[in-house]
Amino acid sequence: MSDIRIEAGKLRAFMERAFEKEGFDTHQAQRIADVLMQADLFGIESHGAQRMMYYHQNIASGSIDVHAHAQTLRETPVSALMDGHFAMGQLTAARAMETAMEKAKKTGVGLVAVRNSSHYGIAGYYPLMAAREGLAAFSMTNTGPIMVPTFGREMMLGTNPLAFSMPADPYPFWFDASTTVVTLGKVEVYDKRGREMPEGWTIDGEGRVCRDAHAMNASILAGGRGGILPLGGEGETHSGHKGYGLAIMVEALTGVLAQGLLCPQMCGAHGDHTSHFFLAFDPAMFGDAHEIRTRMSEYLQMLRDSEKAPGQERIYTPGEKAHEAMADRLENGVPVEENTLAELRQIARELDIAPL
Amino acid sequence: MSDIRIEAGKLRAFMERAFEKEGFDTHQAQRIADVLMQADLFGIESHGAQRMMYYHQNIASGSIDVHAHAQTLRETPVSALMDGHFAMGQLTAARAMETAMEKAKKTGVGLVAVRNSSHYGIAGYYPLMAAREGLAAFSMTNTGPIMVPTFGREMMLGTNPLAFSMPADPYPFWFDASTTVVTLGKVEVYDKRGREMPEGWTIDGEGRVCRDAHAMNASILAGGRGGILPLGGEGETHSGHKGYGLAIMVEALTGVLAQGLLCPQMCGAHGDHTSHFFLAFDPAMFGDAHEIRTRMSEYLQMLRDSEKAPGQERIYTPGEKAHEAMADRLENGVPVEENTLAELRQIARELDIAPL
Repeated sequence: MSDIRIEAGKLRAFMERAFEKEGFDTHQAQRIADVLMQADLFGIESHGAQRMMYYHQNIASGSIDVHAHAQTLRETPVSALMDGHFAMGQLTAARAMETAMEKAKKTGVGLVAVRNSSHYGIAGYYPLMAAREGLAAFSMTNTGPIMVPTFGREMMLGTNPLAFSMPADPYPFWFDASTTVVTLGKVEVYDKRGREMPEGWTIDGEGRVCRDAHAMNASILAGGRGGILPLGGEGETHSGHKGYGLAIMVEALTGVLAQGLLCPQMCGAHGDHTSHFFLAFDPAMFGDAHEIRTRMSEYLQMLRDSEKAPGQERIYTPGEKAHEAMADRLENGVPVEENTLAELRQIARELDIAPL
Repeated sequence: MSDIRIEAGKLRAFMERAFEKEGFDTHQAQRIADVLMQADLFGIESHGAQRMMYYHQNIASGSIDVHAHAQTLRETPVSALMDGHFAMGQLTAARAMETAMEKAKKTGVGLVAVRNSSHYGIAGYYPLMAAREGLAAFSMTNTGPIMVPTFGREMMLGTNPLAFSMPADPYPFWFDASTTVVTLGKVEVYDKRGREMPEGWTIDGEGRVCRDAHAMNASILAGGRGGILPLGGEGETHSGHKGYGLAIMVEALTGVLAQGLLCPQMCGAHGDHTSHFFLAFDPAMFGDAHEIRTRMSEYLQMLRDSEKAPGQERIYTPGEKAHEAMADRLENGVPVEENTLAELRQIARELDIAPL
């Protein structure tokens, strides 16, 4: 498995062209491509070009509706409930976050719950929209079943990521993490590379430690027993119950609050009927926005400057690796796997557009 | 080390008497005792009677001001910034959560940031106040330094708990967890019992795995190098960077947003100048409150009913163990350690009140 570097502008243009040909208008295609490109630029390859085939297939099968638009069902000055009507998740989510931001600018805070959406890309894309305009924001989504409960062996929870961003310099504080110990993407990478996984990532159908990435990946996709462990690992010794609890919290704020499908009611690891939650607020409600931003930046710098563990050269703060990856990829191109390139060629053929 | 069961009503009455004698009025003493009793009833002994001596000493030293009252510095219909003026953390926090709840009842949501508070007991006490009135709520606090960053060896972050509750039956969904892999209380328990800690909880000043609870406890209290690892453990293999990121998120919403002291600026593991964050919202903004509550309850039941890992008889949902512990303790009394009982006798002598 080797990577080829593709010039970022070319990759973006290809994505836009593909999504236009799928039936989206130019503005929509740009938004979807922007979410995917953000992932690729940040070095989160699992959620960038690599997901093009997933969207292509789901559009073809009709599980994503190209012509649908999210609809607001309920609204107050500080909140909205939206139905995604199975439109492309990125479009629904961006509109939901924009709604939360508009409310935050008017009233100080906006909460938006969304049901009947679809896979929305990286959770962290949306809080960054808010951070660019001086707001702090959360984004969460449920997903199809992939995580086993503490002491369980059935996949009853999603990767259920929680993302949060707050303005800071030289770039926003940016946290985006699944509540599983690792994502499916990581299992897939170990599978593709034929590597054994570390202990503490997954358990098999008998509830035993599973290090076989190939077997686990196949089992997850088939909806078998066993699955990925919560952040904190197996049992309670290293506080796996905390990751499990965080995942339920995310489900409470998404599938439950938006009255969408709950995780075990979804089919497939990604989930086609996902629910999201967005919250944006204006830090200026609590004090001088510039001062708060400066304090945030100073604290992050204190962390980076603190003493390193032996053998470590750097302490990172959340978002730092992503922003450094972006600088590299903008200059040197986006690494795309051969498998993914082949998929993009297939998409180009099927959509009758120029390949990369 | 052995425990003696004390009748819950007697323990509560003793606490109330003690706090009245410390200088609080009856209503205040009842609130403080209620927060401590909630911890003891829920089986979180580290934050109940065991903490009486800590508060007693901090009141004596003046670091907690018995006569201070929290003050609202800024306010909007959806938010407030409060200065705790070093009053008892439980009083300030309860008032802040009540403020968030009042705003949530009027506008749908309330966000309250607090600075210059003190140790407020269990983070989860406050969201339960909201859940009892049909609201969903968060509570977070920073604390004095105890956690090392991923790849670091200096304590730069607190235990920084995040608590969340949402109405459900037969009891609310109740999540309350530090963002460290374990709390200081757990290290203390291993120290008192002379037990070795599992790998993956702490690292020493050289950045090596530390299993010596006595040495680690002493080092933390002395502010030495090394400390407790983030949820997810050492490095990134089991996603320790996620626990580290969650802890920074909590600091961003507390010390940074409230413009209080940041963790590394505090002295001592508990922290005397803590900042808190509370958020309460009304689920009824998003749909029928009864239906949302029912869905929450149903999902929790699905989790409990799912297949158990071999050797496991039950799958718990967050808050379940706590509510079962409470039923036991209300019937059979609260287990209090001999050491703690000796401390309560000393407090009784010093305050000139009847001992337990």
